[in-house]
Amino acid sequence: MLHTDFSGVDVHLPADVLGSALERAANAHNLLVSGSGPGSEWLGWRSMLDSPNDALLERLDRLAMEIREEADVLVCVGIGGSYLGADAVITALAPAFRSHGVEVIFAGHHLSGAYLASLVRHLEGKSVYVNVISKSGTTLEPALTFRVLRAFVERSFSNPEERIVATTSRDSGALQHLAADQGYRQFAIPDDVGGRFSVLTPVGLLPIAVAGGDIRSLYYGAVSMHSNSGRVPAETADGLPTAAAYAARRIALYELGYKTEILATMVPELARLGAWWQQLFGESEGKEGKGLFPAVCTFTTDLHSLGQFIQDGDKSVLETFLTVEATSDALTIPESDDNLDGLNYLAGRTFSDVNRAAFEGTREAHISGGTPVIHLTLARQTEEHLGALIYFFEHAVATGAYMLGVNPFDQPGVEAYKKGMLTRLEKE
Amino acid sequence: MLHTDFSGVDVHLPADVLGSALERAANAHNLLVSGSGPGSEWLGWRSMLDSPNDALLERLDRLAMEIREEADVLVCVGIGGSYLGADAVITALAPAFRSHGVEVIFAGHHLSGAYLASLVRHLEGKSVYVNVISKSGTTLEPALTFRVLRAFVERSFSNPEERIVATTSRDSGALQHLAADQGYRQFAIPDDVGGRFSVLTPVGLLPIAVAGGDIRSLYYGAVSMHSNSGRVPAETADGLPTAAAYAARRIALYELGYKTEILATMVPELARLGAWWQQLFGESEGKEGKGLFPAVCTFTTDLHSLGQFIQDGDKSVLETFLTVEATSDALTIPESDDNLDGLNYLAGRTFSDVNRAAFEGTREAHISGGTPVIHLTLARQTEEHLGALIYFFEHAVATGAYMLGVNPFDQPGVEAYKKGMLTRLEKE
Repeated sequence: MLHTDFSGVDVHLPADVLGSALERAANAHNLLVSGSGPGSEWLGWRSMLDSPNDALLERLDRLAMEIREEADVLVCVGIGGSYLGADAVITALAPAFRSHGVEVIFAGHHLSGAYLASLVRHLEGKSVYVNVISKSGTTLEPALTFRVLRAFVERSFSNPEERIVATTSRDSGALQHLAADQGYRQFAIPDDVGGRFSVLTPVGLLPIAVAGGDIRSLYYGAVSMHSNSGRVPAETADGLPTAAAYAARRIALYELGYKTEILATMVPELARLGAWWQQLFGESEGKEGKGLFPAVCTFTTDLHSLGQFIQDGDKSVLETFLTVEATSDALTIPESDDNLDGLNYLAGRTFSDVNRAAFEGTREAHISGGTPVIHLTLARQTEEHLGALIYFFEHAVATGAYMLGVNPFDQPGVEAYKKGMLTRLEKE
Repeated sequence: MLHTDFSGVDVHLPADVLGSALERAANAHNLLVSGSGPGSEWLGWRSMLDSPNDALLERLDRLAMEIREEADVLVCVGIGGSYLGADAVITALAPAFRSHGVEVIFAGHHLSGAYLASLVRHLEGKSVYVNVISKSGTTLEPALTFRVLRAFVERSFSNPEERIVATTSRDSGALQHLAADQGYRQFAIPDDVGGRFSVLTPVGLLPIAVAGGDIRSLYYGAVSMHSNSGRVPAETADGLPTAAAYAARRIALYELGYKTEILATMVPELARLGAWWQQLFGESEGKEGKGLFPAVCTFTTDLHSLGQFIQDGDKSVLETFLTVEATSDALTIPESDDNLDGLNYLAGRTFSDVNRAAFEGTREAHISGGTPVIHLTLARQTEEHLGALIYFFEHAVATGAYMLGVNPFDQPGVEAYKKGMLTRLEKE
């Protein structure tokens, strides 16, 4: 499902550094799978894959079918882990320009009144469902946004309680109380799954299903990667699961002074997967003064932006390429009568072919420019393989954080800005 | 038009370090304004502001008016500097959800056949104009994309030559020859303006005008900032133009070991301005093993993603906030009968108010977490002020690159990936 190539990075790692990193990665992996590391009360994203809840998947699919039949638009209200996973998977699977089906829109992920006012104008006259996603229901951005959208639904439709779905805690919190009070349909966010690890819970699964994704394949793709990652003897020549082998390289480079990891994809459909990865890695590792700064590039777009920097700039950057082996894209390059651009030698070839050559040229150029390069290849850009990739990154970041000696599952720094904000708002 | 606050960064700079950086910035500024630094044949982005070409602005406006009357969609074909500036300004000015007017779509900025095929399906049956933007006409991504879109226009409309506009070199290059041959309308990209400095040439101005932007105000906003930046005695307490004072801080921090600069905005409409800034800074400074890695955040969205890292992670990051002083956004927070989220104390306040409190809380939290913080405040989010900001960043990056001892105007590393790519394509 996922192939890893570390040849472009191991040349930067002296044998003793790599050996020691692999040993520490093995220990970190064992901490994770034995549930004996810091934050082990947050391992629901692993345990839920041991015994898939098919009844839940079916319930989600049934509601998604109803929404697909009834709605023009589904607005998902959530911030951080409450929208990034759904956005990542939906964007990876959907065409760039939607021609039919429900439009899935995200809101509540910032405080822009201009955005929200424009959204409400866009919704007027359409059949709208709202999925509000928050464990507590009191996080400021989604809570304030939901106030506006709830008012819109209540004044626009005779059956507002049927058009609002709450994804929230099972039996506590403001949103759970409101949902029970109003008779909204509810899905539970497991108590032992944190926001950035929640894409395979109803948090991500309902929006993905509404957008037309096959959530069963997505889920079982993750189950399959999870089974492999727990298995010893493991998959790579290093004697480690691939996720731990990836973690070992990243952390070894970090400790050698590399400060930034770029996740680089070759297609725009994977840009939002990058945004999900950025939260997963930044929030899990970035604490106690540690962590690689996670940055995202889409190539070849950003070769005409950050490409110069990566090639010749400050050598504190490592690059992780994510490519897709088999694409279904068959658009071919047309012949030109005049051939003024001199590109007729490419006529009849697919854009995918040219993009693959661009990837190979880029990888080679960045390696020869001195950038350590990791290469992950996903077999196909489908639900099953995306599910596997999601688990791979989750396992890798937990392993890497344990190598750094930090708790992968907390986010104490996220509260800091809220304190100053709320102090100001309350006293004004 | 633009206010700068360096109080959150100067505490990180010992007096002698800051003093020396300011002196070097003054020298770099003089190199720039006297045209005696490396790459001085590329200073057209400055000289064109000395004597604005009003006839050109009028010609652009007239064509934009025609396209606004005739077209449903304008597809702009270009990569890097040939689309990022237009995208930045259009996104900053437009509502999040377009309700009327021409749809402006970018293409040719990657090699995704899936994107292009979806775009062509989206264009079927619509009135389409194409603006192809390339100095040479042989850059692979836009050239191949234009082949597909030219074929679409030729088979869909009886007057294809009236629907394709070429923005290209004045009198040479493949695209210029094709345009002359086919009778396309043409606009010239000045020879002495590089791609990432070209937003105020027809490269950016035509798409912006088609999207409804007031290009005269945009242009004259830049003229005004340019006049101020060249003036001595200058604007700040440091005795330097603000752009040079900004450059001094950035480079001083870089030399103290800071590796990444985050440009952080508080509204999603400015995210694409961040992408333009990222190219401008990454490509101008990132060479000879030097340069700050430019990253972009939109808050509060990314406070739930990279926020943890910035607050508590590796201390190699500096942050430049870009906020807008006066907003026209007047959406207010509704009262809730049940008040289950406990937020009724905010009812009647605008989202802008709350967003401002979020900014202040964030700035305070990041400063107290040890991150150096620069704060740029744009008076208003209008064409005039955006034009001023564009010139500010251009002047700042040229000054900073001269401080680092690199040529701000070349991009030798961008060619590297193309070589390997073309070798592969030609031999296959």
